[in-house]
Amino acid sequence: MTGSDAVSIITTKRDGGELSDAQIDWVVDGFTRGAVADEQMSALAMAIVWRGMTRRETARWTAAMIASGQRMDFTDLPRPTVDKHSTGGVGDKITLPLAPLVAACGAAVPQLSGRGLGHTGGTLDKLESIPGWRADLATPRMREILADPKIGAVVCAAGADLAPADKRLYALRDVTGTVESIPLIASSIMSKKIAEGTGALVLDVKVGAGAFMKDLGAARELAATMVELGKDAGVRTVALLTAMDTPLGRTAGNALEVAESVEVLAGGGPADVVALTLALAREMVALAGLDVDPADVLADGRAMDYWRAMIRAQGGDPDAPLPRARHTEALRADRDGVLTRLDAMGVGIAAWRLGAGRARQGDPVQFGAGIEMHAKPGDTVAAGEPLLTLHTDTPEAIPGAVAALADSITIEEAARPGEAALILDRIGW
Amino acid sequence: MTGSDAVSIITTKRDGGELSDAQIDWVVDGFTRGAVADEQMSALAMAIVWRGMTRRETARWTAAMIASGQRMDFTDLPRPTVDKHSTGGVGDKITLPLAPLVAACGAAVPQLSGRGLGHTGGTLDKLESIPGWRADLATPRMREILADPKIGAVVCAAGADLAPADKRLYALRDVTGTVESIPLIASSIMSKKIAEGTGALVLDVKVGAGAFMKDLGAARELAATMVELGKDAGVRTVALLTAMDTPLGRTAGNALEVAESVEVLAGGGPADVVALTLALAREMVALAGLDVDPADVLADGRAMDYWRAMIRAQGGDPDAPLPRARHTEALRADRDGVLTRLDAMGVGIAAWRLGAGRARQGDPVQFGAGIEMHAKPGDTVAAGEPLLTLHTDTPEAIPGAVAALADSITIEEAARPGEAALILDRIGW
Repeated sequence: MTGSDAVSIITTKRDGGELSDAQIDWVVDGFTRGAVADEQMSALAMAIVWRGMTRRETARWTAAMIASGQRMDFTDLPRPTVDKHSTGGVGDKITLPLAPLVAACGAAVPQLSGRGLGHTGGTLDKLESIPGWRADLATPRMREILADPKIGAVVCAAGADLAPADKRLYALRDVTGTVESIPLIASSIMSKKIAEGTGALVLDVKVGAGAFMKDLGAARELAATMVELGKDAGVRTVALLTAMDTPLGRTAGNALEVAESVEVLAGGGPADVVALTLALAREMVALAGLDVDPADVLADGRAMDYWRAMIRAQGGDPDAPLPRARHTEALRADRDGVLTRLDAMGVGIAAWRLGAGRARQGDPVQFGAGIEMHAKPGDTVAAGEPLLTLHTDTPEAIPGAVAALADSITIEEAARPGEAALILDRIGW
Repeated sequence: MTGSDAVSIITTKRDGGELSDAQIDWVVDGFTRGAVADEQMSALAMAIVWRGMTRRETARWTAAMIASGQRMDFTDLPRPTVDKHSTGGVGDKITLPLAPLVAACGAAVPQLSGRGLGHTGGTLDKLESIPGWRADLATPRMREILADPKIGAVVCAAGADLAPADKRLYALRDVTGTVESIPLIASSIMSKKIAEGTGALVLDVKVGAGAFMKDLGAARELAATMVELGKDAGVRTVALLTAMDTPLGRTAGNALEVAESVEVLAGGGPADVVALTLALAREMVALAGLDVDPADVLADGRAMDYWRAMIRAQGGDPDAPLPRARHTEALRADRDGVLTRLDAMGVGIAAWRLGAGRARQGDPVQFGAGIEMHAKPGDTVAAGEPLLTLHTDTPEAIPGAVAALADSITIEEAARPGEAALILDRIGW
């Protein structure tokens, strides 16, 4: 094919047609090699936002993204592999207790993860707040850790060779208003997860004010698309749809979330973090074909042993004190009543402004920055009592964080009837 | 505004919103300066193909394209200015007899024209087949010719400073499948015509197999959009919708069309070329506020005098023999009957392949190449009689041209009832 075929592929999709396998392979390969220009790919991406893609097109697009780099293979490991991916939420530290818990149950967890951008934190940023811990591992060392019956879990940065076309396309979509497409979001997530070589996958699709997907219908469609893509690629996949209206747990920010995760591994921690960790662990263990109850493995301390081994395997010291921010400031309740709303987006943006997140790729983050939540929706509060503690190394950021929180907190005379569910739906394999 | 505003402009249009004047000014200016990247503009163009633009947005977009360069001003000329633009057809040499005819009627015709690409010829390519004729004129010389009561018409190449944003955008749309948008086509044409400084404008919007617009509804919408844009910019504008199912006249190709145009100016020439020339001239003369019948000015030889003066003013020799192709080949009727179809697109592609047109900007054209048509739809033909003569300097191109014509010619036993209209509609000012 020649350059003019890029135009015919774009116009086919623009006019509502279906792209052939050959067209998808050609355009993704051409984009990877630079033969299809960025301006052509962005026009095609907008046409896909407009017209969508069929299941066949989405599967082929995902396969082409995977084929643009190397696909890892862990089928020779002595244990079944299973991973988890979350679409991103505020205070979502679940990977931290979950990965060692599932490894302690007998599976290997080969997680290639990312750094945070905007209001949601990145798993690598959280772990990097542990003194000594490193995200970069060579593949042979990753394989060694996964094979080790006393570790079995690895969380590291994806190499440049993992679905490189997706990396380029994601950067392009970010600046061209073409992020919001379910087939493109699903293929972006699944191409990386399939390429990382996991045998099974549990997806945590967030829904609500603090999530990318604001409504349950769109989240269900995204989840179903990803479950189908997993099935097509031979990766057993299950999705849980979970609420992201208020932050998960009582902390948002890197070291603050590590400390909370360690509490969970020690048998304590906030109820919602424990509940979601166990729900996801049960799905992962089942997909791995293991007959173990993760609640037992968490309760008897085995998960904590695996956490410490996992942190040490990547150079971290699980006993070292975690970084703390130089300044703290309390935000207090202005009346007596019941906290009925603590908006995840507002808390996420406030934590980001305090220094926990980054505005641009490559920016540093403050490990100690973030927000501690002393009350969560449903809790009774008294006027003057601290609701939140803001942590930051840059106190000049506090007014901006307070402004982001201004409309995020609602205190009413009485609790709202009914309890908000954490797990909204399950889309199974 | 900053780079992230490009994304908010794209997503506003993508989601079906209306762009503000400030957003349109900012994005067009940013694109001209390079602050809005090609991949962002192409995503926006696709969103415009999808969602369209309102009349206000289209007018502002056109104004922003004009503002990206210089707008010429001929209001100080002693005569009214009026121009014509055709959306492009096969054998469409109408500018050649029309410009001197309207000048002879007392108007000034400041036509900035283009070169051909693909199956439709360019007016500049046709005139360049006249020995000595040059398309590049400095603005003071252009103004001098327009002011000269014995010339008054100029056809020249648009300078780089005429709507430069439109030039860049057009090149981008061409490779990103975003040509097919009525607001973008209308603003591209009208920004150049308004910037060229004409006081009035007649549009020849082609409809049919050999035209960009295949159906009357879309052509009407394009014409109405352009007439409104003219009105908004203070340029009196009328559009004629004219048939482009079969080529205009009996020639397609540069020097061949010049010769036919001279026949028209000498009082002969094909009936359809004469009829369309007079119809467009009457509209132009009326918009210029002149009380002259162009038919008289054509009949008494004054238009021919202006033609000769116009060619000489740009260095051409109206008496020099025109270039002729080195090879000719006749295509003959394979049966007795009536020619009921001679497809404009087929003839255009054949002439292009023979060397009359170019595949890429900057390629040379063969001045003598093209097609003479000995029969037009409605004519009775006999088996073995020549239907077409192919002209080319590169005889190896003949089989390709014959292939393009294979399905373009229909001979039937009897004529089809009714005569095809040349002028299909008029959208007035």
